[in-house]
Amino acid sequence: MPAKRTTRSKRPRPGRIVIDEVTPALDGGAFPIKRVVGEPVVVDATIYADGHDRLWCVVAHQPPGSRSWQLAPMHTTNPGLDRWQGSFTPSGVGLHRYRVLAWIDELASWADAARRKLDDNQEIGSDLLAGAGIVEQRSKVASTEHRVALQDAATRLRGGDSNVVSEVGASLDREPDGASVLGAYRAGFKAAAAATSKPTLDVRVEPDRAVFNTWYELFPRSWSTTDGQHGTFKDVEAQLAYVADLGFDVLYLPPIHPIGTSFRKGPGNRSTGGPDDPGSPWAIGSPEGGHTSIHPRLGTLDDFRRLVEAARDNRLDIALDIAFQCSPDHPWVTEHPAWFEHRPDGTIQHAENPPKKYQDIYPLDFDTGEWESLWEALLDVFLYWARQGVTIFRVDNPHTKPFAFWSWVIGEVQARYPEAIFLSEAFTRPAIMHRLAKVGFTLSYSYFPWRQSKQELTEYFTELAAPPGVEYFRPSCWPNTPDILTTQLWGAPRELFASRYFLAATLSPSIGIYGPAFELCENRDAGNGKEEYADSEKYELRQWDRNDPISIREIIGELNAYRFDQLALHTLRTLLFHHTDNDALLAYSKTPHAGPSVDPSRPHVATVLMVANLDPHRTQGGFVDLDPGALGVDPSRPYQVHDLIADRTFTWEGPHVYVELDPHEQPGHLFRVTQGSER
Amino acid sequence: MPAKRTTRSKRPRPGRIVIDEVTPALDGGAFPIKRVVGEPVVVDATIYADGHDRLWCVVAHQPPGSRSWQLAPMHTTNPGLDRWQGSFTPSGVGLHRYRVLAWIDELASWADAARRKLDDNQEIGSDLLAGAGIVEQRSKVASTEHRVALQDAATRLRGGDSNVVSEVGASLDREPDGASVLGAYRAGFKAAAAATSKPTLDVRVEPDRAVFNTWYELFPRSWSTTDGQHGTFKDVEAQLAYVADLGFDVLYLPPIHPIGTSFRKGPGNRSTGGPDDPGSPWAIGSPEGGHTSIHPRLGTLDDFRRLVEAARDNRLDIALDIAFQCSPDHPWVTEHPAWFEHRPDGTIQHAENPPKKYQDIYPLDFDTGEWESLWEALLDVFLYWARQGVTIFRVDNPHTKPFAFWSWVIGEVQARYPEAIFLSEAFTRPAIMHRLAKVGFTLSYSYFPWRQSKQELTEYFTELAAPPGVEYFRPSCWPNTPDILTTQLWGAPRELFASRYFLAATLSPSIGIYGPAFELCENRDAGNGKEEYADSEKYELRQWDRNDPISIREIIGELNAYRFDQLALHTLRTLLFHHTDNDALLAYSKTPHAGPSVDPSRPHVATVLMVANLDPHRTQGGFVDLDPGALGVDPSRPYQVHDLIADRTFTWEGPHVYVELDPHEQPGHLFRVTQGSER
Repeated sequence: MPAKRTTRSKRPRPGRIVIDEVTPALDGGAFPIKRVVGEPVVVDATIYADGHDRLWCVVAHQPPGSRSWQLAPMHTTNPGLDRWQGSFTPSGVGLHRYRVLAWIDELASWADAARRKLDDNQEIGSDLLAGAGIVEQRSKVASTEHRVALQDAATRLRGGDSNVVSEVGASLDREPDGASVLGAYRAGFKAAAAATSKPTLDVRVEPDRAVFNTWYELFPRSWSTTDGQHGTFKDVEAQLAYVADLGFDVLYLPPIHPIGTSFRKGPGNRSTGGPDDPGSPWAIGSPEGGHTSIHPRLGTLDDFRRLVEAARDNRLDIALDIAFQCSPDHPWVTEHPAWFEHRPDGTIQHAENPPKKYQDIYPLDFDTGEWESLWEALLDVFLYWARQGVTIFRVDNPHTKPFAFWSWVIGEVQARYPEAIFLSEAFTRPAIMHRLAKVGFTLSYSYFPWRQSKQELTEYFTELAAPPGVEYFRPSCWPNTPDILTTQLWGAPRELFASRYFLAATLSPSIGIYGPAFELCENRDAGNGKEEYADSEKYELRQWDRNDPISIREIIGELNAYRFDQLALHTLRTLLFHHTDNDALLAYSKTPHAGPSVDPSRPHVATVLMVANLDPHRTQGGFVDLDPGALGVDPSRPYQVHDLIADRTFTWEGPHVYVELDPHEQPGHLFRVTQGSER
Repeated sequence: MPAKRTTRSKRPRPGRIVIDEVTPALDGGAFPIKRVVGEPVVVDATIYADGHDRLWCVVAHQPPGSRSWQLAPMHTTNPGLDRWQGSFTPSGVGLHRYRVLAWIDELASWADAARRKLDDNQEIGSDLLAGAGIVEQRSKVASTEHRVALQDAATRLRGGDSNVVSEVGASLDREPDGASVLGAYRAGFKAAAAATSKPTLDVRVEPDRAVFNTWYELFPRSWSTTDGQHGTFKDVEAQLAYVADLGFDVLYLPPIHPIGTSFRKGPGNRSTGGPDDPGSPWAIGSPEGGHTSIHPRLGTLDDFRRLVEAARDNRLDIALDIAFQCSPDHPWVTEHPAWFEHRPDGTIQHAENPPKKYQDIYPLDFDTGEWESLWEALLDVFLYWARQGVTIFRVDNPHTKPFAFWSWVIGEVQARYPEAIFLSEAFTRPAIMHRLAKVGFTLSYSYFPWRQSKQELTEYFTELAAPPGVEYFRPSCWPNTPDILTTQLWGAPRELFASRYFLAATLSPSIGIYGPAFELCENRDAGNGKEEYADSEKYELRQWDRNDPISIREIIGELNAYRFDQLALHTLRTLLFHHTDNDALLAYSKTPHAGPSVDPSRPHVATVLMVANLDPHRTQGGFVDLDPGALGVDPSRPYQVHDLIADRTFTWEGPHVYVELDPHEQPGHLFRVTQGSER
């Protein structure tokens, strides 16, 4: 023999079963998928072995802290392609684990072959003895509960009773219970699997809140009731009911820290600002403090704590803006010079994206040799505010800091505050936005502001609702932000603001607006060709008349109430678009995710169907082609759609229906779909 | 602080670059992809970092036995999606390795920013100093060759020479050479990568022969020149020229071992066979020996060795059929009873797939406790025949033996005989066929026999030519085998046999026929509704008149010659279907794979275009919509197509051409496509 052989004598006999293409799995299991409590995890896998034996396959899953595995049986969805499916529904928050196990099912294989021989009138005496051997062997290790069934079957087989074949065969065609011979036999499989998928996969299970949330962003300094005066936390506290009554559940504040005076920006982002200008809240830090200090004109730490508590009394959580950058006056600039990049002339490089310059901001140097102390300090910022009662963070420009930093810092915060929510403000290339979602961000700002036509919205949301993205990337849809007034909204009528809110509110579980600019339909752009606001609140105080009759707060409040009530609007996964013959009409539906925590008899657990009018100027009508099956109704009988906004019920029949929408009356239909005896 | 922090003090600063979605990669790198010598490996990856820095990315590749890496630069194919591409062409056989490396390109990032500032007329004195620092630092570790360029650039930058910015900028827009500043700077990257894709991937590079091969299967016992007499190796040897003249390069023999007498099958697979019947060659083993013995009526081992050598003189390699199963008379049955599964009554279970019974065959029990001695014995079978000069194996029913066995045994054989080729005879579900190809089989029988209509052929071959399958699954296309006479061929005219051969020969690099049944257009089925031959040679001797005028050997020989000559027919990867307006006409083209070993000026390196007539009865004509760009011709000028079969040249213009085919003249057009001054 020309070469030495591989030694195999110490190895166990290699397994015969292959478990492949397990889904859902992110990047081969490098990152957890995400779910909310009560939302099922449907696991698919390709499973096969050599030969003709039958397999038994299960999804094994394990809640956090447990060391034992629960088993959920799988069934074949496409035998020709060897695809199997099973599912489980995590019942609590935390990092659950799952994997696929498979066994050669000797008893099923035996019954299958014996049944075919019986059908062919072949002699099966020897087969009955073989079957007896199979169940007898298992009975020796079975629990008391199953041993009786197995011993009984063995006795009958030895006695030549071929009925056992058909009994096991019948179990094969449906899920066997533990009392059947096959069920008792399979119970023995719990000991050890013949094959286990690798690696074990993770699913991060979070409260509904991590997916479903409705944000209102405001600049506290503009909320004084006295014209021209710098607003305070107390001013905001006094007006919390306004935000709460609109149905928002997160109140998000831009940075609340001292603002630098060096290179302070003046109104309109002009570089001529002086100390009397308020400056940009994102130019963080002055001799009065940095990322853990409060701007003196907003109030004290006690004022802030009171605001957090008062908000909570109004079912509102405060979210803070975490922007890891410093004004030249930030204490860190002198205390930790190594955290900044110095140029050959000794100066610190201000932020820039040539030819753009941000002279009032120094970036932090994540490549510094002192990266560990920097990272610790940044973690401390999160932990400081968490101790003040804030666990929702909107993170500014995370894509300009290392992914490894976010993975670490989010993990550290969530280890102490599992409920912590991180919203990624990265309007950048898809690969980077998705990576941030994978490494830990709960939510991500999305391209929604720029998806405006029927085709754009359909394509974008179809992608967002599909795997693999839907397993981890949770878009937050904002029709506006202080940084973004899209060209579509320049000079736009209030009907377009209502339409954009309708779309966001019904397409996406996570949404937000920057107010009161949004509800007051602020449509004046900066006039420089950029998608920026005129008289941007980022650089000056604004006085808003929230009682201006142009306000669309009524429809916002109404939509937020329906969002809260209708479970179907708490998920993106079930989104389905329906064809319309008019490009100004966008039709889509959602069903609540199934799962044991959802009681289908409750009135808010219904399919909802939306038809949005994308034209803010004219009444638009057209035919919608519905898929009644996808709506959960029997297409052969009439069904009812109740428009929650107009409070009108229509009875429809078949898939082809006509709708008409006047933008001056309502931005869209929001139908609850029912059928039969239900009201 | 409520919880203890993760200690990070011993760790290096985590990297900033992500390398993702590297292709080609099989199952995350669990299996090698496959290539032939001279065929490029085009590597794509998603690569990005936080921030705005520019990256430099390369494919690193390593031939077998080497410890150093060669670098091939990558370029962005879609910057918005962060997709990069690079390629290399393995120059020799063996297991090559490859991975993707990426660096933050500080000099490129600097030049990019400085260039934009210059364009905006900003002051860049400090930037020039920063640039000097970047190149100076690199010059300290640069090779002598590059140090000069870097030091010179630093000096000029310190002197305020902003031309360096545009020089580096110009290099950015094309691949920089080592003499440029950027080239000298990047040369320094070879030391260590900032990011490396994981895991390192493998590509198994094989000789052209592993992909391109043309098989002829015959039963030696039918090749006696005397009617009714059992043929011998000597008979085959005497008629090798017949097979060689037809242009085949592999001569494949069904099992040549002693045949058992217990339950010997009679003609027509009847269970009434007696010792005077020849029996099935797959019922291997008798007191005269087993898998390493030769059936006495075929000849001696010396006869066999002479046949192997004589075949080689005719440019033919002998392939043997390896069927791991035993007749009840096989020596192993008594020598190694533990290798077989015994039933409760002590008998050995014959092979069965109820209600079908194979009483003349015992399967080997791969689950036996003595699996190690069994595996070793089976390896010895391969090695025994390899020592007799046979390194091409057609493996019978590999899907009924464990994948782990094949992975091991093929690895062991190829470690000693790297040229060994294994053809998997598994007509089963796709997942299993593909797994066998992944674990080591060189070639795989395919569903070609049952893909007959234009739509079936288009769909199947489009799938076969696409990733991921094309990276490892090499279909061998056989219009017939001793086991398969498809219903399409029952009573079929010779024109259909010619058409099927034309399709196989031009669609697939690996093909084969079972002869002389095929070239003599044997079209009589067994009459039992199964796709089996009447008077099957598997159970009786046949006498064939190879000079029967019905023979299609002329077109077979011609097609085999064109297959050999035209490099484009040696690959599946470039297959492209073209639309025709007639369902009886199938149009498709192939181009030779590019690569340094291919000289495009040689006449056999041309695009070929096929139009097959799927109707064996009638002349069919129609329009073909060609993609001239895909054919490698300038669509604005006329181009020439030379039909190799008819030896006629047509000049075409534009994409829309008319073709007409009479099945009685030729089964299809096989055009060589040229343009310009070439004849």
